[in-house]
Amino acid sequence: MKLKLTLLLILISTTTLLKAQDSLMLRKIYDEELVNGQCYGNLHYLCKNIGPRLSGSKNAQKAVEWGKKLMESYGFDHVFLQEVMVPHWVRGAKEVGMIIDGKNKIPVPIAALGMSVATPKEGITANIIEVHSLKELDTLGESMIKGKIVFFNRPFDPRFIETLRAYGTAGDQRNMGPAAAAKYGAVGVIVRSLTETLDNYPHTGATRYAPDGIKIPAAAISTKAANQLSTLLKQRKLPLIKFYFKQNCEMRPDTLSYNVIGELTGSENPNKFITVGGHLDSWDLAEGAHDDGTGVMGSVEAVRILKVLGYKPKNTIRAVFFMNEENGDKGGIKYAELAAKNKEEHIAAIESDLGGFTPRGFGFTGLSSNQFKNLASWKTLFEPYGSSRFLVGGGGSDIGPLKEKAPGVILIGFDPDSQRYFDVHHTPNDVFENVNKRELELGAASMASLIYLIDQHGFN
Amino acid sequence: MKLKLTLLLILISTTTLLKAQDSLMLRKIYDEELVNGQCYGNLHYLCKNIGPRLSGSKNAQKAVEWGKKLMESYGFDHVFLQEVMVPHWVRGAKEVGMIIDGKNKIPVPIAALGMSVATPKEGITANIIEVHSLKELDTLGESMIKGKIVFFNRPFDPRFIETLRAYGTAGDQRNMGPAAAAKYGAVGVIVRSLTETLDNYPHTGATRYAPDGIKIPAAAISTKAANQLSTLLKQRKLPLIKFYFKQNCEMRPDTLSYNVIGELTGSENPNKFITVGGHLDSWDLAEGAHDDGTGVMGSVEAVRILKVLGYKPKNTIRAVFFMNEENGDKGGIKYAELAAKNKEEHIAAIESDLGGFTPRGFGFTGLSSNQFKNLASWKTLFEPYGSSRFLVGGGGSDIGPLKEKAPGVILIGFDPDSQRYFDVHHTPNDVFENVNKRELELGAASMASLIYLIDQHGFN
Repeated sequence: MKLKLTLLLILISTTTLLKAQDSLMLRKIYDEELVNGQCYGNLHYLCKNIGPRLSGSKNAQKAVEWGKKLMESYGFDHVFLQEVMVPHWVRGAKEVGMIIDGKNKIPVPIAALGMSVATPKEGITANIIEVHSLKELDTLGESMIKGKIVFFNRPFDPRFIETLRAYGTAGDQRNMGPAAAAKYGAVGVIVRSLTETLDNYPHTGATRYAPDGIKIPAAAISTKAANQLSTLLKQRKLPLIKFYFKQNCEMRPDTLSYNVIGELTGSENPNKFITVGGHLDSWDLAEGAHDDGTGVMGSVEAVRILKVLGYKPKNTIRAVFFMNEENGDKGGIKYAELAAKNKEEHIAAIESDLGGFTPRGFGFTGLSSNQFKNLASWKTLFEPYGSSRFLVGGGGSDIGPLKEKAPGVILIGFDPDSQRYFDVHHTPNDVFENVNKRELELGAASMASLIYLIDQHGFN
Repeated sequence: MKLKLTLLLILISTTTLLKAQDSLMLRKIYDEELVNGQCYGNLHYLCKNIGPRLSGSKNAQKAVEWGKKLMESYGFDHVFLQEVMVPHWVRGAKEVGMIIDGKNKIPVPIAALGMSVATPKEGITANIIEVHSLKELDTLGESMIKGKIVFFNRPFDPRFIETLRAYGTAGDQRNMGPAAAAKYGAVGVIVRSLTETLDNYPHTGATRYAPDGIKIPAAAISTKAANQLSTLLKQRKLPLIKFYFKQNCEMRPDTLSYNVIGELTGSENPNKFITVGGHLDSWDLAEGAHDDGTGVMGSVEAVRILKVLGYKPKNTIRAVFFMNEENGDKGGIKYAELAAKNKEEHIAAIESDLGGFTPRGFGFTGLSSNQFKNLASWKTLFEPYGSSRFLVGGGGSDIGPLKEKAPGVILIGFDPDSQRYFDVHHTPNDVFENVNKRELELGAASMASLIYLIDQHGFN
């Protein structure tokens, strides 16, 4: 009996000690980041010295080279590139859009959707019909749609607390609207920008054509102009409102590009991996600061913190800069393929692709309900840092393919505050100046902390 | 026994029903605000049509009149003003500051601290000595300080997760530094701006002279210029670095002003009050958007939401626009005095004066530990809205005086995310454009929700 009690006490003390060690380590991680953080300066370089870096562009290649050097400068154990062929879409000259209200021509801000085809050189002029869903196209049918421009104008639902959910429910208009409208003979598509704000900026983003379908030109229109157009469509019966737009984008041949990877080799399990990453490519309209400069700079920072604190991981810890998330996901797909081919065991993959805002927590995919419950003690550790919201479900486009290719992997989405993301998302406003230094740093520290806990304890 | 069981079941069902009702009501509150919110538009008016509104100024009076009309337009049961005499400090012509490095004169951005006296018309030129604490003044003593300008240069400690704590620990330099330096014969004081950012803006704010002490002119200097000055002071031995500054501020006679109050009268306890408020006055350098336009517009919005949802409160619910928080707290003091005089029983007072950022939760002062534990069920209600961080301790300058004057009151600080606050606090950047619509709305809805819960259930 006495022996049992002693054992119990030892067990309790060990648990308490471990918890105290973890707590101290998190404090060290946050202190290092908040005092000596480098990700904000790195983001400045990426935004201002490189800038927009759509897949296949010269800037994307510059970003690859600079990213590799950055990881090498931090003395990671192994830094390397993974070759990946990516689409090379080019916007060309700035688009022109106009509402034609009888003799009145009203210029409106538009931007071609990524992967869209161009209009004919002279542009397209056609009657325009407003719809609010893909389903409505089926109801209207070819007789109402053929020869017209389809105007998707379903706004974000402001009642969602997380803007990501509003994006999720409105996004089909941009992703699938052009392909769906083409089936009914539409000659072009204009999509209300995917944002809850009323502003004058078109928010671009990729659309997906059906592989064997007709490709019609498609553009985003600013939310203010979308409202204006909708009002005019309601007011005018005859003559009908027409719309004119001209865009000059083109698909060029696929281009060789790279994922950039840096790792701290695991001392116990070098072939077991915990990865953290974001995407290096960005839309062409701005600097890709929040999307996803903060993700890549925060990810490499998380690994830098652990390295500089002298942490010797049990498992291999990897920072991954994925290429081509915005218009193809080729980098994420390639990474997963190579993980399978090289028989790498992935314990967990963290993705940061929702901006560099104040971290609120993480979302987890792949945990059993017991494993999720067991995260409660980690939650407690994150509470002093305001980053303790652990949700069931989470991940991202780049780590998604690992689910199939690296069975058993836990996919984790870094979950920052979402309120401001769609103010800047895919617009000319996604610039360095809209990133707050401390918000970015807190995110990097929270990811470093989670990596540390996973490396130490795994998911029990 | 059977009867007891039935009673128990009735009790359980009632509790479950009540919880479901509360949950539904919170959803209604958030929906109303996110779909029909008016506080962002109101804030726009306050910032752009009225603007800076320091106590005693014409704009402060305009804000009082407009605020009263706004409350009346919402059909509150009772809208009234409380007279309060406030200090009237005026900045005068823009300040001039220069580092004098031998023959080299380097202009630096400074702004007089609120309530500071002016320099002589020709300005002050003197040797400057850098210190990091009030205690250091005692160590240096009169022999080292007399005739010099004292330069307080202790930065924010970035390791605090909440920037408010960094402000709290650095704030004595601005609040008490000039009075302390004057005792040792300093001729002026320059204070490093109270912010964690490195920027070119002096962050103003009030200083407090000893009532019977010598008043010496005091100004804030931008953090970048503070670093520059500090570097020069370290590099140059002889000739010594001097500093020149000139400011033109003055104290005018106290002025009659007002707190603005609007209420929904309680149906059961008209003389029991739940208040929510912020301060209407703002610093003169910008629009007082986050400090504290969001506080007053969010507070009146919280009451508007309850009104428009047809909610009939048991207790009287008050929105209060306090006057003169920035340089005197006269409005808060007067409100508490009148509460005592009129024998008003205050159940709770909520203050919003930390900016209009994403709400994280609330801090509570005055609850027993059991009462605080009982908030757990409310926390659960706030979780879907991301505003469930309930902390022990919280309040604000304006509701603080109620602690003594309205015994039993629970003081509650609205607790938004703090990372960006000191980017704009007391600077020319505190403008409408730096407020996010949804962040502001979520705060208003969270305050309305808390008021509803307190009104329904009190603190058990």
